Amino acid sequence: MLPVAVDAMGGDRAPAEILAGARAAVAAGLPVILVGPPDLDGAGDLPIVPASEVIAMDEDPAGGVRRKKDSSLVRAAESVRDGRSCAMVSAGNTGATMASALLRMGRISGVSRPAIAAPIPIPGAEVPNILLDAGANAEVQPEWLVQFAQMGSVYHRVRFGTPVPKVGLMSIGEEPGKGDSLRKAAYELLASAPGIHFVGNVEGRDMMTKTADVVVTDGFTGNVILKTLEGGMKAVLRALLDAFGAEPEYQPHAEALLPALLPLHAQLSPDTYGGAMLLGVDGVCIITHGSSNATAMHNAIRLAHDMAERDIVGQIRAAVRAA
Amino acid sequence: MLPVAVDAMGGDRAPAEILAGARAAVAAGLPVILVGPPDLDGAGDLPIVPASEVIAMDEDPAGGVRRKKDSSLVRAAESVRDGRSCAMVSAGNTGATMASALLRMGRISGVSRPAIAAPIPIPGAEVPNILLDAGANAEVQPEWLVQFAQMGSVYHRVRFGTPVPKVGLMSIGEEPGKGDSLRKAAYELLASAPGIHFVGNVEGRDMMTKTADVVVTDGFTGNVILKTLEGGMKAVLRALLDAFGAEPEYQPHAEALLPALLPLHAQLSPDTYGGAMLLGVDGVCIITHGSSNATAMHNAIRLAHDMAERDIVGQIRAAVRAA
Repeated sequence: MLPVAVDAMGGDRAPAEILAGARAAVAAGLPVILVGPPDLDGAGDLPIVPASEVIAMDEDPAGGVRRKKDSSLVRAAESVRDGRSCAMVSAGNTGATMASALLRMGRISGVSRPAIAAPIPIPGAEVPNILLDAGANAEVQPEWLVQFAQMGSVYHRVRFGTPVPKVGLMSIGEEPGKGDSLRKAAYELLASAPGIHFVGNVEGRDMMTKTADVVVTDGFTGNVILKTLEGGMKAVLRALLDAFGAEPEYQPHAEALLPALLPLHAQLSPDTYGGAMLLGVDGVCIITHGSSNATAMHNAIRLAHDMAERDIVGQIRAAVRAA
Repeated sequence: MLPVAVDAMGGDRAPAEILAGARAAVAAGLPVILVGPPDLDGAGDLPIVPASEVIAMDEDPAGGVRRKKDSSLVRAAESVRDGRSCAMVSAGNTGATMASALLRMGRISGVSRPAIAAPIPIPGAEVPNILLDAGANAEVQPEWLVQFAQMGSVYHRVRFGTPVPKVGLMSIGEEPGKGDSLRKAAYELLASAPGIHFVGNVEGRDMMTKTADVVVTDGFTGNVILKTLEGGMKAVLRALLDAFGAEPEYQPHAEALLPALLPLHAQLSPDTYGGAMLLGVDGVCIITHGSSNATAMHNAIRLAHDMAERDIVGQIRAAVRAA
């Protein structure tokens, strides 16, 4: 089994939490190769692909990738391209991760644009929805949405075992004619597209329900949805804790309910599902939250291994070819 | 004080809950005039503007307003136009409510497009954010976003007393260059627009924080945000109740925490803030949730009275003229 290349320098908590996650993954039997400075503190006996540069979290992605050819992100993508690792994982600059993967691994033949597929938890359900594009393409063509639907369906099937994932088009009304001109055109195309089970328009309120397994939208709207839910969940959980802490007599009751609250909290955390996957590039690339801790990195490394083992890239290639 | 015209026939729970809300408002000293069939059951001694037709919840808005000239929505808008009521409130077909208001009341001079201003609760905070456009215009011009910012600022000031509301542009990154071409163009215009305090781009995760008081976006994205949060909050609260109900021993503790939970639940309910307001038309028009109950209608009627009394229309007119 080839190792997963882990960008040791990416993310707000790099390198400490990244290394902790990598060590946990190795302890669980998942091979890892770090990408970063050869003398990295705390790397222990983990192998390292040397990289002397770092693309900062807020650095211009395209410029960073162009200028910093010896950056951990670029070297991670090259190690996948060169067959020295089976996948890459980074908690770093999302745009630069995409650019590195796209430029070094290339696109799968026939794919117009890669898209970020992000898991959206459904409270109380075992399997999340997949939202794409969650931010790779701020502006899209209707045809790309069809391909996002095909790639997202493959992903949901391969990752969660859903035989025929339901695909919804995010819009602002359930009826076919609703939405802007992009949605109207995409609806027509999706309704007759091969290889997907299109269930029509969905709305924002369906995002955390089982109405659709795969929700397709442009990268602007998708990114706004992802971050809106993330912020909303955080605000509600914080308000809940504040409310429980408001009176001393609440404390014992809140503590007694912790076993009920913790699984829900874990399920709603962006760390739980291992991050988002860049679909459409010719290699496995997992993008985790910038604030990823060791648990998030461990989960992301597991997801990366799983997707490489199940040949998600080959499956997407076959689906795109058949469409 | 002129009465508020209440569409007795609009909404999933019309007419019973609408009438109950209207009676509660009257009991609280807020004059109301119903709009609907003259022989409406349960109207008691409330005055009625007669209207023999109803535009259904799922009816084509433009067609409905054109064909049904004696509908409760059209008659409600006419009663505002003719100075027989100070405002209209409807829980009915949102598109038809907008169309009725726009066609019968007209636009405020100088306003390019009316926009729906929706309150977004901030858990634990007293004053919500205002999001606009929440669905009136699926596609917008950058210039319209500037006017949405100006109208939204007036609304936040008049409604909540915020002296200088902070305006954020919804985008997918905080830096000025982030987003699609619409956002890039709008950023430039907003940065130099008169009459507003522009704080730059905001992201989805800022929607439920105090980063901005007024968030401007196109009606497609705004509607998706509104419904995504609504669905997300509902899903989390349901999952919370399910988790607390999962074990019998949780029950007494959950009951003991109810006094902490109920205010939070009320704050997150779409009924609490009295609904959304259509800004830019020449009259006060409040659009409440289709599922509005008596409480929601009562709150909406109070909001309508408040906004009429404080002359929100005159204030917007002055702001648009000054810009």
